[in-house]
Amino acid sequence: MRTAVVIGTGLVGTSAALALSGRGVQVHLVDRDPSSAGTAAALGAGTEEAPEGPVDLAVVAVPPAHTASVLAGAMRDGVARGYLDVASVKGGPRRELEALGIDLTAYIGTHPMAGKERSGPLAATADLFEGRPWVLTPTPHTDTEVLNLALELVALCRAVPVVMDADAHDRAVALVSHTPQLVSSMVAARLEEADETAVRLCGQGIRDVTRIAASDPRMWVEILSANPGPVADVLARIAADLDETVRALRGLESADADERRTGADGIEDVLRRGNAGRVRVPGKHGAAPAAYEVVAVLISDRPGELAGIFADAGRAGVNIEDVRIEHATGQQAGLVQLMVEPSGAPVLSAALSERGWPVRP
Amino acid sequence: MRTAVVIGTGLVGTSAALALSGRGVQVHLVDRDPSSAGTAAALGAGTEEAPEGPVDLAVVAVPPAHTASVLAGAMRDGVARGYLDVASVKGGPRRELEALGIDLTAYIGTHPMAGKERSGPLAATADLFEGRPWVLTPTPHTDTEVLNLALELVALCRAVPVVMDADAHDRAVALVSHTPQLVSSMVAARLEEADETAVRLCGQGIRDVTRIAASDPRMWVEILSANPGPVADVLARIAADLDETVRALRGLESADADERRTGADGIEDVLRRGNAGRVRVPGKHGAAPAAYEVVAVLISDRPGELAGIFADAGRAGVNIEDVRIEHATGQQAGLVQLMVEPSGAPVLSAALSERGWPVRP
Repeated sequence: MRTAVVIGTGLVGTSAALALSGRGVQVHLVDRDPSSAGTAAALGAGTEEAPEGPVDLAVVAVPPAHTASVLAGAMRDGVARGYLDVASVKGGPRRELEALGIDLTAYIGTHPMAGKERSGPLAATADLFEGRPWVLTPTPHTDTEVLNLALELVALCRAVPVVMDADAHDRAVALVSHTPQLVSSMVAARLEEADETAVRLCGQGIRDVTRIAASDPRMWVEILSANPGPVADVLARIAADLDETVRALRGLESADADERRTGADGIEDVLRRGNAGRVRVPGKHGAAPAAYEVVAVLISDRPGELAGIFADAGRAGVNIEDVRIEHATGQQAGLVQLMVEPSGAPVLSAALSERGWPVRP
Repeated sequence: MRTAVVIGTGLVGTSAALALSGRGVQVHLVDRDPSSAGTAAALGAGTEEAPEGPVDLAVVAVPPAHTASVLAGAMRDGVARGYLDVASVKGGPRRELEALGIDLTAYIGTHPMAGKERSGPLAATADLFEGRPWVLTPTPHTDTEVLNLALELVALCRAVPVVMDADAHDRAVALVSHTPQLVSSMVAARLEEADETAVRLCGQGIRDVTRIAASDPRMWVEILSANPGPVADVLARIAADLDETVRALRGLESADADERRTGADGIEDVLRRGNAGRVRVPGKHGAAPAAYEVVAVLISDRPGELAGIFADAGRAGVNIEDVRIEHATGQQAGLVQLMVEPSGAPVLSAALSERGWPVRP
């Protein structure tokens, strides 16, 4: 690939343009808002000048609701040899294009699984996609040349290509992204009217469950509007589990020992299925979370305490894979949990103890 | 308080005994399993010898199902001036004691909001309760002397006393602890049958939402069995939101523009209520999560990288309040997010940039 046009210079479009430009591809930037394209160009993402002839690849990075019409326009104008979009849903845009009667051999729908809290070209970075899954949804009609252009883009962005059927993709993101967002919001919504005293009892569990409930509602309305069916299907199955669980809890209130037993079994069942699902969630490096061991150290909250621990861990040659700091309410002291490969745990424990750190068993 | 008896030398009982012994209180240890009391005594939590006369305070730290009967036995034997339990629910034990016709002026129900993954005396530490909320549920009939003994215990354990009505406590933990556990399990349970390709698309959002789905089912069946009514009430309200949300999503699939508009409004409503609830969740030090700013730095995964960052942060005099490390799938490099007080963010950014760290805007 030598030339590309990026249509839509928001976070994703500009980040892809930065990655392509950084690896020697001539990138032309287009946006409905010329100041956005200008910002992207100023960041080194490419040029605002129009290409002289068709480019190798057109990357359409506009909001889901406009994806099909922008793609159709670009394809009618013949701006490129191959076309792809990066919208977070894949079935809808394809069906819209089909309805427009467009030949789809030169098109491939894709979805890079990367993002951040901020949007717009100023939030863009060339490394946004590094190591992230980038879903490609070719059909039997997709030109091999177009698939290879998409694979080249993914490689230049240092992402990990994952080939999926468009509808399977939409069901997968409904399951692993869109549903958790809505459920997190619903748990957090219960706190809106809670007593201040109740809220004081919040611990790390609810803190983690509700973290993404802080997300931008408008952005999520747009995402969910493009994938309502698969999300409703997953939520309906959770609703069935929820109804069963409420019934099981009511059984636990019963005076009848058999009903209490049935209730306890129902509760245990949903908790065990939760265990089974949770172990499938990949950790970083794709490892299951259980693959790390925790070394816990008590610290004060003075600057330099963490530095000392990390320095001593570094000296011991042990790599810290993840960190969690648990602070007690209203207190400065806290417990640092250092996640390490199992082989490193005893080495790290011994090294830190030797240097006087209060390592917890 | 000069003397105490701790009945039940598991994690909580032994930790309280260690804190009391460490601050000069004479502690007598009792457990149905003598080897457990022996272990606690060997750790320095107190003596296995019986007290010569009534002690100042009896701390009953047995499983919820046995709390009332053990309390009743101790009160009939007159082992102490004041009695408290530490069970994770408070309404049930009180009603059981009332049903037994026991004078409750010398009793106060309490609940220390502290725990860990491991149980038993060997997991105990004198600092388990440091800075954690410790709920006290006095009634108008509770002797002031007994309330003061409980407050003294909480102070000696360096916890933060929170006075609540017993039933309000049970509703609060249903909301902030028991419900998030079940909902996390239900989201994780959806992954049990998911395609491997779908699971590969998991990101940090679902990872956080399902973290506590890894919890021990048996322990949670016991906890939930003691508080089924309040948990069912919260879950029923979430179920109502869930049904509304499924309806809103179905509306978004409609051909009718009005129905789509109503659907989008319904989705936006639940997301906004989630925002409003989430800001009420206290962060560490009791601060709302929004109170921190994030300074993000790209690192490789070599030992010593984190040490260097923390050392340079320490030199800049900026205290790091929390850390999150985001690793890309299948990659060694990652993004370190350093949470700092807002005033410290520009100082830290400048200091790290100056020392050559790739700080992300």
